[in-house]
Amino acid sequence: MSSSATATATWKQLLLNSINSNSHLKHSTYFQLATVGINGRPSNRTVVFRGFQDGTNKIQINTDSRTRKIDDLKHCPFAEVCWYFTETWEQFRIHGKVDMIDASNSDPDKLKQREAAWFAGSVRSRLQYLGPTPGIPSLDEQPSHDSLDPSAGPVDAFCLLLLDPEQVDYLNLKSNERLAFSTRRSFNGEKFWTQYKVNP
Amino acid sequence: MSSSATATATWKQLLLNSINSNSHLKHSTYFQLATVGINGRPSNRTVVFRGFQDGTNKIQINTDSRTRKIDDLKHCPFAEVCWYFTETWEQFRIHGKVDMIDASNSDPDKLKQREAAWFAGSVRSRLQYLGPTPGIPSLDEQPSHDSLDPSAGPVDAFCLLLLDPEQVDYLNLKSNERLAFSTRRSFNGEKFWTQYKVNP
Repeated sequence: MSSSATATATWKQLLLNSINSNSHLKHSTYFQLATVGINGRPSNRTVVFRGFQDGTNKIQINTDSRTRKIDDLKHCPFAEVCWYFTETWEQFRIHGKVDMIDASNSDPDKLKQREAAWFAGSVRSRLQYLGPTPGIPSLDEQPSHDSLDPSAGPVDAFCLLLLDPEQVDYLNLKSNERLAFSTRRSFNGEKFWTQYKVNP
Repeated sequence: MSSSATATATWKQLLLNSINSNSHLKHSTYFQLATVGINGRPSNRTVVFRGFQDGTNKIQINTDSRTRKIDDLKHCPFAEVCWYFTETWEQFRIHGKVDMIDASNSDPDKLKQREAAWFAGSVRSRLQYLGPTPGIPSLDEQPSHDSLDPSAGPVDAFCLLLLDPEQVDYLNLKSNERLAFSTRRSFNGEKFWTQYKVNP
């Protein structure tokens, strides 16, 4: 059993490599996000990777605050990403706590991050947050929103999720190698990552 | 709001169409299975679709009974599949209860299903169930299992999962259409499916 500890997250470099090797595929930025509902049962949906928060390991996801995953995360703030790269046959399972940043957030820095995430998306992608409530029965006649002032800031329904990884499980189906990464606290309270090989 | 009720599951035909349209892609039979751990947190991993149980809507998955998903399912028997088809841009979220059929099962019919699932896999894929316990730290020296009697029945670690769908959420990202399917019981206790359009 080989094990090592590092201050920086070595899984992040592995993940950046995978993102890069699979970047010619549109779906390579899609992953599945599992949460736990109020009824204690799992739910699972595809979401889009919006990059890492600057200077951190936190994974950014945009979502509509009217979706069920928000209720789920209010009940249980932990989520697990399953990200399978179809070209390189690699899987990352990323477990962590999710911070929800919506219009009601009281932290000015977080509201700035939310605004930056809003403007990072295309105007077309912003339009969906003006649409009818996702997941509820659809009326035959829907008001349509075909245009939006490109300089207008985030609408109420826009929510930025930040997933802070605690554990990462990496599996390579080509080499049949698997690595487990987890966080520990040092004596001075600093967070560091350990990694070791596990059986696939 | 348009709604309809049928005895047969119309989502199944949609799913069979998607499987067919994406069948040239190896990864089209891979989906993500979310469960809830003993700690109440979600977990999520890629598994392989092994077909429907004959004459039913139940989804077959092979797994190693030494993996954490088995502990998860003993604690909470509900799972949610998220299956994204990369060619046709369709997503199926399939929620249901999971029946675990391992060597200790007392039902002879279920044991027959487990045996059939074992023999349906390649000899090479069966070898992994003879390997060291998945997910635990890997020893540098591992006993290798390079051969297996092709006529030998399932080993202890082989477990067949049967997911019985209760709710299905279908999303088509090309047409931007979304359908919700759910099960009801009729007055005579028979299970039937209803479906309606929901906002994407």
